[in-house]
Order: sequence, then structure tokens, then C-alpha cells
Amino acid sequence: MIYGHGDDIHGHSRPIRYNFSSNVRQGVDHSGLMLHLWEDLTLLSNYPEPAPVSLEEKISEALGVKSNCVMVTNGATEAIYLAATLKIDARSAVLTPTFAEYADAAAAAGHEVRNMPSILSLSKDYDMAWICNPNNPTGRMIPAQEILEIADALPYTLMVVDQAYHRYTPFPAIEPHEAVLRNNVLLIYSMTKDYSVPGLRIGYAVGNPHIIARMRSGRMPWAMSTPALKAAHYLLDHEADYAMPLEDMLAQAQRLKQGLEEIGIKVEPSTTPFMLCELPDLADAYSLKQYLIDKADILIRAAGNMRPLDRPYFRVASIGAEADALLVKKIKEWMQYGR
Amino acid sequence: MIYGHGDDIHGHSRPIRYNFSSNVRQGVDHSGLMLHLWEDLTLLSNYPEPAPVSLEEKISEALGVKSNCVMVTNGATEAIYLAATLKIDARSAVLTPTFAEYADAAAAAGHEVRNMPSILSLSKDYDMAWICNPNNPTGRMIPAQEILEIADALPYTLMVVDQAYHRYTPFPAIEPHEAVLRNNVLLIYSMTKDYSVPGLRIGYAVGNPHIIARMRSGRMPWAMSTPALKAAHYLLDHEADYAMPLEDMLAQAQRLKQGLEEIGIKVEPSTTPFMLCELPDLADAYSLKQYLIDKADILIRAAGNMRPLDRPYFRVASIGAEADALLVKKIKEWMQYGR
Repeated sequence: MIYGHGDDIHGHSRPIRYNFSSNVRQGVDHSGLMLHLWEDLTLLSNYPEPAPVSLEEKISEALGVKSNCVMVTNGATEAIYLAATLKIDARSAVLTPTFAEYADAAAAAGHEVRNMPSILSLSKDYDMAWICNPNNPTGRMIPAQEILEIADALPYTLMVVDQAYHRYTPFPAIEPHEAVLRNNVLLIYSMTKDYSVPGLRIGYAVGNPHIIARMRSGRMPWAMSTPALKAAHYLLDHEADYAMPLEDMLAQAQRLKQGLEEIGIKVEPSTTPFMLCELPDLADAYSLKQYLIDKADILIRAAGNMRPLDRPYFRVASIGAEADALLVKKIKEWMQYGR
Repeated sequence: MIYGHGDDIHGHSRPIRYNFSSNVRQGVDHSGLMLHLWEDLTLLSNYPEPAPVSLEEKISEALGVKSNCVMVTNGATEAIYLAATLKIDARSAVLTPTFAEYADAAAAAGHEVRNMPSILSLSKDYDMAWICNPNNPTGRMIPAQEILEIADALPYTLMVVDQAYHRYTPFPAIEPHEAVLRNNVLLIYSMTKDYSVPGLRIGYAVGNPHIIARMRSGRMPWAMSTPALKAAHYLLDHEADYAMPLEDMLAQAQRLKQGLEEIGIKVEPSTTPFMLCELPDLADAYSLKQYLIDKADILIRAAGNMRPLDRPYFRVASIGAEADALLVKKIKEWMQYGR
């Protein structure tokens, strides 16, 4: 899906001042990284490594797995599309509501795709299962152990677990070594989300060497740019600078949730700073979204295109006390006068 | 092919001082572009456009075609890999010797691949023909009109013409409007080569809207990073700053050719500043390459892996009078004492 994602600030003529539509932590100071990139005069004039081998080595060391268990990709999205090509003539189950790219990538690879509200509906009839954990847009977290038990019970079903948001929840995700040991678990990670660099496209997949070798087999040279590779090395070397103040973020998100509930909005229980909301009386979140852009330079993520959600649904992420309070105020205004 | 390309400075422990192994013009001043990227504080923290629509519009305006005739890709290499997927169960003809990625992309898409020394051997038995024009590594240029006549005579053969080096030759390449009019001509371009930014991965394909729509159909969102998109816009807006001093480059390349011929090396006639060379007496260009790295911090492109070339072949590009003279001197040294 090209259009209809969050953070679609490119599509609006008015400048967006408060961006609740992105799940990625905002306000991170990238001046050190910018300086690091800027200092390298060969940044633009030297070819990148043909394959991002040195980055794969660094990531695998950090994860405590061998480097043939890691494939760096052009954003987590490329990892999703490559993962889909691991099975042909396949039946794919997508745990919904969720990020649209799993179903799109599976369909592009020719899979028959079924939406599934619960992981308990999975069966050996499916060749592949797609689980976003914690889930976008709900922030729901399935215990890692539960997914691994199902994986072990369904040895011919490849479980693709997108852990892009693993740093946005206090609950433990599946560990890389737990995936690498198995033949049917592939983890997807997003440096974009880990380090709040959505401008750069850096993701990776972690799995056992047989799966990773198959994903790498069609790899073209120079898929990653020199700035992306250099930035990724810097980010891994400066882990401490990017530590997420998750406790504070979740406390503030809890206050946002209460504020929204107080004005009659249903909010799904979330383990992350982002949450799925439902307007009362089947009201239209697309109309709310337009109102907030026009009246308050606020952007939210209308979620009606996240199957099987409908028009009353939207997603927001807490971005700070003051902005969150303004959001609640403006939504209340729309519910009273704007609709 | 991941390994064995030119500009493989990453694979060597010694620093490379003189890089003859890349076809891309060197010494270009990117300070304006760097400043432009640096000034944008949201460069890393804002998502790129989901699809590079505004860049496709700008390129198509510059080329004088409609925007649905242009697809921006993650480097020209991605355009090559996407082009290969346009035909299934296909027979592909690759005009050789040439860049390895055409055969690799065609093979990855399941094509039966044949090497072909001359465009005159093309026939309707082939579903796809791959022509690099001007050609890497030889610098040979097939007249645009000749390719178009063959395309018109073979309406069911898709001619993929990689014009990545069109700015490196004085001879006219196929014009975008000539491709767009036809059902079976797809042009590939490389901003990397046009503007000497190998660190960034920006290419595009130009063809009629039916072909481009099929290439775009499997496109994933956010394939291009924010820095790459922003840089591409800047480069198109500052065309004059990147004008190539081609006449001087070719005159100097002619002197390099003479110097190499004087020491007994056979040099293929080239219309570009890069050229394909053959050592006498079946000498080994890989051994020469290692010698030049070890003794003079010089990098050349051994070309033995460019089918159907063999070990005596290598490619160099002229990089300036002084460096070129040193290259000839060091090769002569190796031929006399080093082998």
C-alpha cells in the first residue's frame, strides 16, 4: 500500500504542527549523528559496500547470534516483502487489525491471504503467519512464549514476527537466539523505530541461517546507500544516546487514554505509547482528521483502511502532555460542534 | 552479483589513493549538496514520501514526458531487477561483455540467458534484450537509431537499454520520447552516474505508461530515504553545477589509451573516459591489480568476471593527467619486474 499510512504529512497543504499520526518517538536529538555524517567528505562520492556485511556483523554481535542469521534490508518493509517470497503458492494468515504491508506483501507474492483476529485460530492449514508484536495499531502484546509454543506446535508454518516496536513496550519480545534455534520463526526489526530515524530506511531480519540464506539469494548489490550504512553504524555505536524514556512515555500515554475516554472515545488497551481509538456513534475519523488539520495543524492516523477496521477508528501516539491535552480538547470540540 | 564489481575499496586493507576502478567521474564538489542536506533538521526524523511522486514529476518535466512514464528506483540496479520481472519464462539476450547485473537479474527472474557479442544476432526468439549503451566496460556506443530500428523490427522483444553512462559519451543516446512512443523500449538512467553521487542510490526507468505501471505495481512504500529524495531534488535544481567537462575528460582518456598501448596493452576503442584493456601474453589482471594495490595504492577493475572476458582483461577510467601517467608507469613496472 503506497497511500493511507500514518505520518502522511506530504499529502497536506497546511504545515502539521502536532503529529500524532506516527508511532515513532519524536523529538530525538540527532545532532551528533548529523555531525558524524557531515564530517565524512566521501559520504556521497564513495560507493557503499555492495552488501552491508560489516553492518550485519555488528548487529549480530549486538544480538549474540552469528552473522549469517541477520539480513539488513532497505527498511523493515523490504524485510516484509522478502519474507513473503520465502513461500510460493502459500496460504498466509495475518493477525488483524494490523499494518497493511503484511497482507500486501503476501498478496504480491501470490499468497492466499486470510485475516485472523486471534493467534489461537492459527492452524497447520497456513504456510505462513504474520504477527506484529507489539501490534500496530493496537499496542497489544502477545507473550513471546505463547508465540514460540504455537510455532513449535506448527512446524510447517513460518511465523513472521515483526518486532519493529519492541522498544516501545515494557514486555519482553522474542529473543534473537530463540528464533535462530528454530526453522520456522523469522523476526523483523526496524532501526527506523529503535532510533527514531524514519528518514533513513534501515531494517533487518533475524532467523536461522537457512532462512536468511534464502532471503539473501536474490539480493542486488548496493541496495543500501552510504549515508544509511554510516548512520546505522553510528547508531549502534551510540546506543546509550538513544535510550527510550519508556516509563515516562507510557505514563503520559495513560493520561492521554484517560482524557480520550472521558470525552466518550473507546481506547483499546495498549502496552505502547500509541493506541487504537474508536469514535462513538459510528462517527467518521476521516472527517475528524480533516477537521484537526484545518483547525489545529494536528495530524492523526485514520485507521479505516486497516482491515477489518471501519471509519470510526483512528490511531494516535502520545507526544507530550501539552500537545496531548490540545488533542483531546480539539477532538471534543469536533464532537460537539464540528461534525 | 555482490562481489567482484569495480570500486571495491571496502575489500582492501590498504587505503586506495588512485581509484581507476570506478566509471563515475571523480573530484566533483558536493559541498553545496552537503550543506543543503545538513540545513534540514527534519532530514532524519521525517518519513520520506511513501512513493517518490514529486521526484518522478520533476524528472519527467525535465525529460519532456508524462510523469506516468517515469519510475524512480533505489539505484539503477533496482530498475534492472524490476525490468527483469516484466517477462516470465522468458529468453533473455545480453549484449556482452557487460555489467554483470543484467544476466543476474534475468536469471533471478527465471529467464534463460544467452550472451551475445553483437546486436545483429538479436532475433524474435528473444523476449528481452539487455543493452548497456554506452557500454560498461568497453565504452562502445551503438547508434540510437540502430537500436530503435531493431526494436521496431522485433515488436515482441522488450529492449532494455541502460543509458547510465549517457553523459560520458558525446554520441546521442535514445531520447525519452522515442522510448515512450514504443511498446518495447525501456530506458534506464542513473543519477548516481549523472551527478557523481555513488554514495546515494538513485536511478529511474523511462518507458511507456503500460510498462511503467507494471513495474510500479509491486512497489513497496518508503523505498527511497529522505536524504536520497532531497538530494535528488537538489541535483535536478542545480544541473549547471554538475555539467561534465567531457571534452577534457575524453582528451585525457585518449592520452591514457596511448600510454597504455605504448607499453603493449591492447585497448578497446571507447567513446567514454573508461576503457577495456587486455594484457599481452595472457597475463593475469588480478595479479596486476594486487600489485598496484600493494605498491602504489592504485585500484583497477579486473574484468575477468565479465562474461565472456578472461583473466587478461581489466577496466580503467582516466582520472587526470598525473594519476594516469603514474598508472602507466606502475603497470609497465609490473610487466617488467613484478609478474
